[in-house]
Amino acid sequence: MAKKAVLALGGNAIIQAGQKGTITEQFKNTRDSLGGVVELIRQGYQLAISHGNGPQVGNMLIQHNAGIQKGVAPLPLGVLVAATEGTMGYMIEQSLQNKLIKEGITNKVITINSQVVVSEDDPSMQNPSKPVGPFYTEEEAKALQSEFGWHITEDAGRGWRQVVASPKPIDIIPADTIKQLVEDNQIVIACGGGGIPVVREEDGTLDGIDAVIDKDFASALLAEKIGAEFLVILTGVDKVAINFGKPDQKELDTLTMEEAQKYYDEGQFPKGSMGPKILAAISFIKNGGNKVIITSIERIVDAFAGKTGTIIQG
Amino acid sequence: MAKKAVLALGGNAIIQAGQKGTITEQFKNTRDSLGGVVELIRQGYQLAISHGNGPQVGNMLIQHNAGIQKGVAPLPLGVLVAATEGTMGYMIEQSLQNKLIKEGITNKVITINSQVVVSEDDPSMQNPSKPVGPFYTEEEAKALQSEFGWHITEDAGRGWRQVVASPKPIDIIPADTIKQLVEDNQIVIACGGGGIPVVREEDGTLDGIDAVIDKDFASALLAEKIGAEFLVILTGVDKVAINFGKPDQKELDTLTMEEAQKYYDEGQFPKGSMGPKILAAISFIKNGGNKVIITSIERIVDAFAGKTGTIIQG
Repeated sequence: MAKKAVLALGGNAIIQAGQKGTITEQFKNTRDSLGGVVELIRQGYQLAISHGNGPQVGNMLIQHNAGIQKGVAPLPLGVLVAATEGTMGYMIEQSLQNKLIKEGITNKVITINSQVVVSEDDPSMQNPSKPVGPFYTEEEAKALQSEFGWHITEDAGRGWRQVVASPKPIDIIPADTIKQLVEDNQIVIACGGGGIPVVREEDGTLDGIDAVIDKDFASALLAEKIGAEFLVILTGVDKVAINFGKPDQKELDTLTMEEAQKYYDEGQFPKGSMGPKILAAISFIKNGGNKVIITSIERIVDAFAGKTGTIIQG
Repeated sequence: MAKKAVLALGGNAIIQAGQKGTITEQFKNTRDSLGGVVELIRQGYQLAISHGNGPQVGNMLIQHNAGIQKGVAPLPLGVLVAATEGTMGYMIEQSLQNKLIKEGITNKVITINSQVVVSEDDPSMQNPSKPVGPFYTEEEAKALQSEFGWHITEDAGRGWRQVVASPKPIDIIPADTIKQLVEDNQIVIACGGGGIPVVREEDGTLDGIDAVIDKDFASALLAEKIGAEFLVILTGVDKVAINFGKPDQKELDTLTMEEAQKYYDEGQFPKGSMGPKILAAISFIKNGGNKVIITSIERIVDAFAGKTGTIIQG
């Protein structure tokens, strides 16, 4: 039986640090990223692909703010996430499809809009702290706060930013359809940007909220929901390390659940980068997942072959 | 056996004439539009839903232009169509899902990004004439022309606009998947804004182009590709009329193919509104479709029951 895997692409696979994010850059980065993914498909893996959207949604927020002065009503953050699911889904879909066509591989690539349910009782809802979008002057930030009710915060002397809640995902609305298509050997791009955040009202209906969902947590839940054996979290490094950036930095080939939790509790994995990846990995294994691989997109095939990457298992 | 239908929603079902398109307006219009669609689902019709995106992509173009001055690289028009497939797909999906949940109907609603193939040899590629986005002053328009290579035109004394090619759709990349899901009783939102325009290169790969595809033509092709019996084109009026707006205006209950072509050739149906709907209807029937209904979204159930609307058959 074919093995299912969820690949979580970092947003930086599409816009790299220091780039403006022109369409040429974004398509080139996307194409360059996908060689290993094609090889996994050739090897018979059934794949769902999720992706971050930080730089893209940041750009959209700048455009939206600029558009207000031209009389265009801004859309809420959740709707902008939906926009990036459209734009980035298209880029990844077409780039992957073209690589498959060139290799004579006939699997279809499909992008599905993903509403992801969170709880209004999530502790983060009371304490919005995830920065999104550009830096503002204090004056700009306070104007946006008063006009749109934004939460804003001063960011370590670098300027002011909007902060939003980042609640944990608890359900993925199109999960059954994603599973159905993945098991039909279609490659499904889903949960882009962590998914469009919604809450479920008492009558069962869904309602969008201003928040962003961590894409690694969403990917772990997606992997669980579609019964994937593997969750592959792609990042800027080949392996997870402890004492990162210090003389005694040590790269890890494997991590047990206990080690992962212990290092996390010791503060080895920073909040904005490796921390959520480790927590997402722990969550996936706890909920019945088989194996998590954390590695770089360049080394994904080697990591599946056991030659690099950090493996987290129960 | 269940009957399949493609419903083509007008963009004005979501942003009405004179509205700014705030998120509240867009969600309210969407919700208000969908009562009849729920009834068709209850009656057992299997549905794919397409939609226009004129006002939405116009707003995005304004935001994009404003963002350029803030240092954000603009995305090409095809990528903006992908963005509106995300945003409008989300709004329609959630609004319809909520109505179904309230009625205890369990069908899933799924939004799929849709690349739609056009030909580089389409005559319209040599003669871009479809206006998109806002009006500009001559100076602004010429600056955009020189910076981005846009085609621009002066619009009857109202200002300058970008014009793009509007080639005929010849293939819908995710058509097989849409068919598979529709036949599984999932309601699929697809081909939003006419689809993301792409051309197929000699090696079979796909490449985006700056164009927009008429959503009625895309809907007719979608209906053909998924083997739908019905194509339902929703517009601002209950029935097609000849001598529209004149004292001898006559609403039509039925149109044969010959009548439709004859009236079209006589110039009864203006290019920017009823014209493409009639041509799309003719194309669907010619390619084996059973029946086209042109009516308003408010009267959709009555039209299926034969009480209103214009029916076009072979």
